[in-house]
Amino acid sequence: MTRVDFWYEFSSTYSYPAAMRAAEIARERSVVLRWRPFLLGPIFVAQGWRNSPFNLYPAKGRYMWRDVERVCAKLSLPFRRPEPFPQNSLFASRAALVLEDEDRAAFSRAIYAAEYGEGRPIAERATIAETLAGLGHNPSAIIERASSEPIKAKLRSETDEAQRLGIFGAPTFIVEGGELFWGNDRLEDALDWAARY
Amino acid sequence: MTRVDFWYEFSSTYSYPAAMRAAEIARERSVVLRWRPFLLGPIFVAQGWRNSPFNLYPAKGRYMWRDVERVCAKLSLPFRRPEPFPQNSLFASRAALVLEDEDRAAFSRAIYAAEYGEGRPIAERATIAETLAGLGHNPSAIIERASSEPIKAKLRSETDEAQRLGIFGAPTFIVEGGELFWGNDRLEDALDWAARY
Repeated sequence: MTRVDFWYEFSSTYSYPAAMRAAEIARERSVVLRWRPFLLGPIFVAQGWRNSPFNLYPAKGRYMWRDVERVCAKLSLPFRRPEPFPQNSLFASRAALVLEDEDRAAFSRAIYAAEYGEGRPIAERATIAETLAGLGHNPSAIIERASSEPIKAKLRSETDEAQRLGIFGAPTFIVEGGELFWGNDRLEDALDWAARY
Repeated sequence: MTRVDFWYEFSSTYSYPAAMRAAEIARERSVVLRWRPFLLGPIFVAQGWRNSPFNLYPAKGRYMWRDVERVCAKLSLPFRRPEPFPQNSLFASRAALVLEDEDRAAFSRAIYAAEYGEGRPIAERATIAETLAGLGHNPSAIIERASSEPIKAKLRSETDEAQRLGIFGAPTFIVEGGELFWGNDRLEDALDWAARY
């Protein structure tokens, strides 16, 4: 089965509908999805942006909020704007990297649902802990590992890898062999590409 | 019948597939499409960009060329990258404004087909003249009017209007009532919205 790397950022709005849909669409096409959280911040800083482009360019930002609202309504996904935006995604990303495979996917969906479905603050440890507990994990053990040096280094190396692969936004899908697709709007195209590969 | 304003830029890559498809999709939904060429340059300059974002941000630019190629292949549209990019679209935009309604739509499609289907230089008067002649117009009469003060002023006022409406990229579709959709990917959504209006 062909593998697709799903690169996502917990602060990215369009990664929310992608994360909620990706597993089912991959399953329908018998494609293996690898969940790869990373940080966009260092990639934005490298191209001169010290904030989200949606904050730097107000007309684009106003449009994005309306568009995401419409996209979620079309998919019957609840949507609530978190404040502030972007949410600091560092700790959620590290916690995701502690988990593997299906556990990571389920945790990632739950974080997105908390953040953009309910507008909850994912930068806070309490949100992370409650989300982990809700999935049957031992929150304190995972939170401790999320603060460990190997996990910090892993997130840095994943972010470096994303930049090396030419990723400039999230979500991004990279099909085994290298074909890159950017955006929730390209989820089906990416997985169709993988299914034909 | 609900009206949708189709705002396009002759130098915009994603405006090409949108322009080639828009009339038929509007007809299927009984929506009136108003073709409104404008210039993105002044809007980009106002937000600090002195060049196309696809040139300013190389990773995004490399991705865009591959993505447009895939989008066109999926729609069975020929695609050839014009050099240089972006093409200067000033004169083509003025010529489009000399024409009205269906004549403007047909000319605009023909210019996009020359530019992105064949890679021809649309900044050159010869390309504009041949395109006009191919549609049964008298090229010299239209080219003379395209250089007149009222047409120059019209393009400036259309561009000001685009900026006032919150347009930040092309193509953009604005449904009667104000709902704004950005990008070739939102063409169907915009016209569906108008059909339900």
